Amino acid sequence: MGIESGTSPQNNVAALFEPRNVAVIGSFKEGWFGAYIVAKQLLDFGFRGKVYPINPNYDTALGLRVYPSVLDVPDPIDLVIVVTAARTLPGILQQCAQKGVKAAIIVSDGFAERDEAGARLQQDMVAIARRANLRLLGPNTVGVVNTAKGLLTNPYLMEYGKFTPGSISLCSQTGILGSQALPLGDTRYRIGKMCDFGNKCDVNELDLLEYLGNDPQTSVIAMHLEDIKDGQAFLEKARKVTAKKPVIILKPGRTELSAKALVSHTGSLAGEDRVYSQALKQAGVIRVDTLRELIEIPKVFAYQNCLPSGNRVALITISGGIGVMGIDAAAECGLTPAHVAPDTAQKLDEIFTSLGKNPVDFGPAIPLVPDFAKWYSETVVQVLNDDNVDCAALVMYGGLLLLSMETFADIRRKVSKPMTMWLYGQRLAAVAEWGGLLDDLGIPVYSEWPTAVKALGIAHQYAKIREESMLKG
Amino acid sequence: MGIESGTSPQNNVAALFEPRNVAVIGSFKEGWFGAYIVAKQLLDFGFRGKVYPINPNYDTALGLRVYPSVLDVPDPIDLVIVVTAARTLPGILQQCAQKGVKAAIIVSDGFAERDEAGARLQQDMVAIARRANLRLLGPNTVGVVNTAKGLLTNPYLMEYGKFTPGSISLCSQTGILGSQALPLGDTRYRIGKMCDFGNKCDVNELDLLEYLGNDPQTSVIAMHLEDIKDGQAFLEKARKVTAKKPVIILKPGRTELSAKALVSHTGSLAGEDRVYSQALKQAGVIRVDTLRELIEIPKVFAYQNCLPSGNRVALITISGGIGVMGIDAAAECGLTPAHVAPDTAQKLDEIFTSLGKNPVDFGPAIPLVPDFAKWYSETVVQVLNDDNVDCAALVMYGGLLLLSMETFADIRRKVSKPMTMWLYGQRLAAVAEWGGLLDDLGIPVYSEWPTAVKALGIAHQYAKIREESMLKG
Repeated sequence: MGIESGTSPQNNVAALFEPRNVAVIGSFKEGWFGAYIVAKQLLDFGFRGKVYPINPNYDTALGLRVYPSVLDVPDPIDLVIVVTAARTLPGILQQCAQKGVKAAIIVSDGFAERDEAGARLQQDMVAIARRANLRLLGPNTVGVVNTAKGLLTNPYLMEYGKFTPGSISLCSQTGILGSQALPLGDTRYRIGKMCDFGNKCDVNELDLLEYLGNDPQTSVIAMHLEDIKDGQAFLEKARKVTAKKPVIILKPGRTELSAKALVSHTGSLAGEDRVYSQALKQAGVIRVDTLRELIEIPKVFAYQNCLPSGNRVALITISGGIGVMGIDAAAECGLTPAHVAPDTAQKLDEIFTSLGKNPVDFGPAIPLVPDFAKWYSETVVQVLNDDNVDCAALVMYGGLLLLSMETFADIRRKVSKPMTMWLYGQRLAAVAEWGGLLDDLGIPVYSEWPTAVKALGIAHQYAKIREESMLKG
Repeated sequence: MGIESGTSPQNNVAALFEPRNVAVIGSFKEGWFGAYIVAKQLLDFGFRGKVYPINPNYDTALGLRVYPSVLDVPDPIDLVIVVTAARTLPGILQQCAQKGVKAAIIVSDGFAERDEAGARLQQDMVAIARRANLRLLGPNTVGVVNTAKGLLTNPYLMEYGKFTPGSISLCSQTGILGSQALPLGDTRYRIGKMCDFGNKCDVNELDLLEYLGNDPQTSVIAMHLEDIKDGQAFLEKARKVTAKKPVIILKPGRTELSAKALVSHTGSLAGEDRVYSQALKQAGVIRVDTLRELIEIPKVFAYQNCLPSGNRVALITISGGIGVMGIDAAAECGLTPAHVAPDTAQKLDEIFTSLGKNPVDFGPAIPLVPDFAKWYSETVVQVLNDDNVDCAALVMYGGLLLLSMETFADIRRKVSKPMTMWLYGQRLAAVAEWGGLLDDLGIPVYSEWPTAVKALGIAHQYAKIREESMLKG
């Protein structure tokens, strides 16, 4: 089921992320929300295609000619983004259908999530779109991001001027995972594609799983899902995708009450949680527990090009107390503390008393060992390249102590096993800055120590999933 | 067992936090670690007492006269901070005993945590101190903080120039909870006293529980403990303290492996985890799971002066998806979503469709309701003052949208029930800044949404603990 040619439904999902030209329909009055912001940000973020503002009451906006309707635009249009009152949608979509538009992002709300009348309007909209093979994202969505194309359809003002392109693709059923809600600029998070499903009247998790599964620019897929529309089809597709790349899911509704609340949020019914949980596991999908995990765990895959060959983790710390907490975290995610080979342990002990243990605690040695940076680097490389070690979680102070980025670049060059790090420190800005630099080196940094360890546990879990999948053929 | 007069052991624990004069023993060479930094920071942070540098090889340091030994200092000395080689400690402590020093903070390491010889040295040190009723903190510690006295004994350079004084007291068995490792400046975390136990050769969790339990400036006690020296005595003391103020504990070693690792970290044996867990619960001690929780949960107690009368939580959000996640979080910490009274619900629904539910989701109304700030404030107050609501967790964007600090000040003035908030946003600095301002208003802000909800669950748990304790007399 690869991407098909022509204007097949699946091909038109691609138009959401890779449109040649886009039209933006709504008000072009300056403000902090709406079509004006959508068009402005398409220009600001350097969208590689033409942007056509559509509104019968404007002649120009943002230095662009405004057309009365999509039918008046001379060029073909692949994607429209609509930010108008709900009741105008059927008429607008009729015109889009006539124009041959492939996909529409309906930012507007007031549909199935609001009331009965809204639900009927949503049905009408879908009927029009289906007839024209026009795919709809939303309604009630902030749309998509594709950093490789400078595409950002967010109707809220972004406070940061650019993204760091990458291969993590993030989908959600809430705008909170939209680009306007995350500190993607400050953290230099390497995003590939983002998608807010909104009400999922048409395009849903199954479409995105297929599209992102086949997308060579996506190395890991993370999805926040409140429900799964077609469980069986999703699981079948997931089994194929997870053989190639990790699929990580955050699915709330673990309790009866939250499952009930889901109904009123997006107007859809959530299934029985245990059933989901078991089925997802069988399909090789990895489930995480919090929003923070959904965002940060993918870094372990996207920022380095290796998986652990086993579950033996070295905990490399500068605080014994944190090391101990890491053992708890390791046990809770299926990892076990590595025992370095006796000769490695002996060498470490000779350099500094008690260093040949796990956690490997550099703390006491810092003020005592001359040329600490060189020694730290050599020791970490030695521990990681020990045959009894599959991966390592490091704890470091946000000012790097006596070390430099060169220390870590050197370690990364000499080690081809997965590493994660927790940085802590006195200044939030310094921690964020160093964290971004370490991320860039290929040592993904986590905002919590247990998450840094859990990321390796999940990398190990995924290594097993892929191995099993390869054995099955 | 209140604080006794004279030089009783317990009174001398007080000397760790409220010394009149202090002596700092070690090297006064400029650097980023050591006695020089201790003395410098005592001056910089405005310690309210005299500081005596001690070292036979210096005449002056930091503009102060340096004395060859404590015996040469003309004034009485309550507290000494020692940053010298381990082997020098017995001699130094002999002199301190002779001088009548009440307490010593042994920053030096290389004792029981290192090897057999170190363990013997530690025993010798304790023997000398016991005879003189001199209390020892450490060794292998960064010491204490008492913001009310400008007392900071940290041997590492602090990157921020001042603390925000408060009533949260934090103890730990690792320097990572020391003031040099936490962004207390950026977050304006309101710290009262801090204490790093180090090896706990003498002063331990029982002493601190008693001291902080009786300390009128401490409203909540948070402790990271790897072991508990005298379990029975600790539990008896805890039962008394928790009747007055919350005691929150992070105790790693949940797994067999981490319990084993604890042995090598501080040279002491950790007990069976389940036994601890049950006993702590019976004594009214609240156990948390992560370092972040240990630091942030106390804010729910220290930043507002009220406890929930029941477990019914209102989730007040601007994102439906986050609201649903809050219901999961609530169920996991013993809270249940509040059902506002029918007339409140009807009023809310009349203002905006579907608002009279829980989660109360303002999201869809933001672009539509005129004078949003006034309306938001009135609605939140109405929900919180509903008799069916005991507390509320709020979700807000880090730029506050159309609201201002005055909106939240107004809400806080009109509501005497506990609130917490999760702030999210595009800029880390903005989120931190707004978070600090909301903290100051008495609406504690959390770095994760589940933690904001869990804090209320723990506040409810503590309200029950105190009620039961009062019933028992």
